[in-house]
Amino acid sequence: MKVITTIAEMRQVRSQQTGSVGLVPTMGFLHEGHLELVRRARVENLTVVVSIFVNPSQFGPEEDFISYPRDPERDLALLEKERAGIVFMPEAQEIYPEGFSSWVEVKRITDRLEGVFRPGHFRGCATVVAKLFNIVEPDRAYFGQKDAQQLAVIRKMVSDLNMNLEIVAVPTVREPDGLAMSSRNTHLSRKEREAALILWKALCHAQELWDNGERSAERLRQEMTALIVGQPLARIDYVSVADPETLEELVEIDRPALVSLAVWIGKTRLIDNISLE
Amino acid sequence: MKVITTIAEMRQVRSQQTGSVGLVPTMGFLHEGHLELVRRARVENLTVVVSIFVNPSQFGPEEDFISYPRDPERDLALLEKERAGIVFMPEAQEIYPEGFSSWVEVKRITDRLEGVFRPGHFRGCATVVAKLFNIVEPDRAYFGQKDAQQLAVIRKMVSDLNMNLEIVAVPTVREPDGLAMSSRNTHLSRKEREAALILWKALCHAQELWDNGERSAERLRQEMTALIVGQPLARIDYVSVADPETLEELVEIDRPALVSLAVWIGKTRLIDNISLE
Repeated sequence: MKVITTIAEMRQVRSQQTGSVGLVPTMGFLHEGHLELVRRARVENLTVVVSIFVNPSQFGPEEDFISYPRDPERDLALLEKERAGIVFMPEAQEIYPEGFSSWVEVKRITDRLEGVFRPGHFRGCATVVAKLFNIVEPDRAYFGQKDAQQLAVIRKMVSDLNMNLEIVAVPTVREPDGLAMSSRNTHLSRKEREAALILWKALCHAQELWDNGERSAERLRQEMTALIVGQPLARIDYVSVADPETLEELVEIDRPALVSLAVWIGKTRLIDNISLE
Repeated sequence: MKVITTIAEMRQVRSQQTGSVGLVPTMGFLHEGHLELVRRARVENLTVVVSIFVNPSQFGPEEDFISYPRDPERDLALLEKERAGIVFMPEAQEIYPEGFSSWVEVKRITDRLEGVFRPGHFRGCATVVAKLFNIVEPDRAYFGQKDAQQLAVIRKMVSDLNMNLEIVAVPTVREPDGLAMSSRNTHLSRKEREAALILWKALCHAQELWDNGERSAERLRQEMTALIVGQPLARIDYVSVADPETLEELVEIDRPALVSLAVWIGKTRLIDNISLE
């Protein structure tokens, strides 16, 4: 496994690859969810590049950039085991040199959900992903469905700016009890970890209502909200039943829908979602 | 010569090219300046792609998008003569489909000069150029030095977003009397055409002052301004002596400098520049 820290070396190594290249962009502190992305990429490509970069520009000034969990040695051991071919782990200075001033902005779908609570977040995401695409020039890039809006933003960017690669979405990996895997789960105390299950419970409840024929989006939002409010350690940012492409809130669920939520458990902000279709 | 109007066909034809590809992005109504770009691209690449696209997103609502001169048949005849291999001339709908909402924004250097008088202009330029780069995937792209700030913005975008191609700047081509070639010159009446020479005269005066050892940027700006104000058909947007990379106005000319100006001649806005080095 080759570990690369500079753009120049990444370019040079990339230019030697003759077969297809799959990119798995991550912020490190890898869990089963990331490893699923790597496995899928390995099946579909001759070479797999995993990037590890905690991207400062997608964190707000009040957010957890400093405390975001990091463990590069453990990450490298996990990736070695998964037989990832290349790991690209640049320093912040390499990606954002002095005087950096160009940004990719995806408008409209970034005004909703996460975009409301994390202004600037998707500008940071889109920009760093565009940079990684230009540096690695992958044939395919792999993203988890857990970050559903991020996935929608990246797809929109790729389509609008005619980027020449395929975006592959991989289903969310969950703990045995249903909690979505997330690097931020490590921040949860034992009590919070129990309380965090409320996100999955609320999503399962929405699924059940829908399975039983409920088609009022408002009804789903209300019942999920009531469930979560009953958990004293939880504080809701949003509960949404929306069109999966435009992310506009639905009134009637007359098409596939993205049910998503963002909930604080103590000082940790968690997100999760399911698709109704 | 192959004329292509869809992105899908452009991609397909591009994927068959094995040698280097040079891209010359234009808005059509070609003149000697454009043809110089094509010739330079032909010398340096196996295949030359010329794009012709009057990009609506780089024109302000009050600007001359509608009246911008167009003559695709003449353009194609000229390019045939120059042995351009491929012409990419998409409709606006192909480049900006319904719901388009992603933009490339280069900050700071776009706050100056043209950016002050044409808000949103460089966002439109950078975005369409990024799209053309992604569609054509050239090894080199060719831009005229006449649009000096555009060139600086494109270079900054390429560097910041790690786009994998070389930007080649080609010197401004001038009429025998010194007027910089521009598609907009066609709008000038005979009297305005005479008056338009004031841009070149002002630039030559700046060069002369500098050749004689003058190093005060303000002195250059003042003398150029005085010259232009003496021409009754001319109205100044700006006269600038700036750092060629950051475009910050200089006080003392203690390094290479970009001397640039934008001047209305009647209802036609002209720009021009020289480098002092």
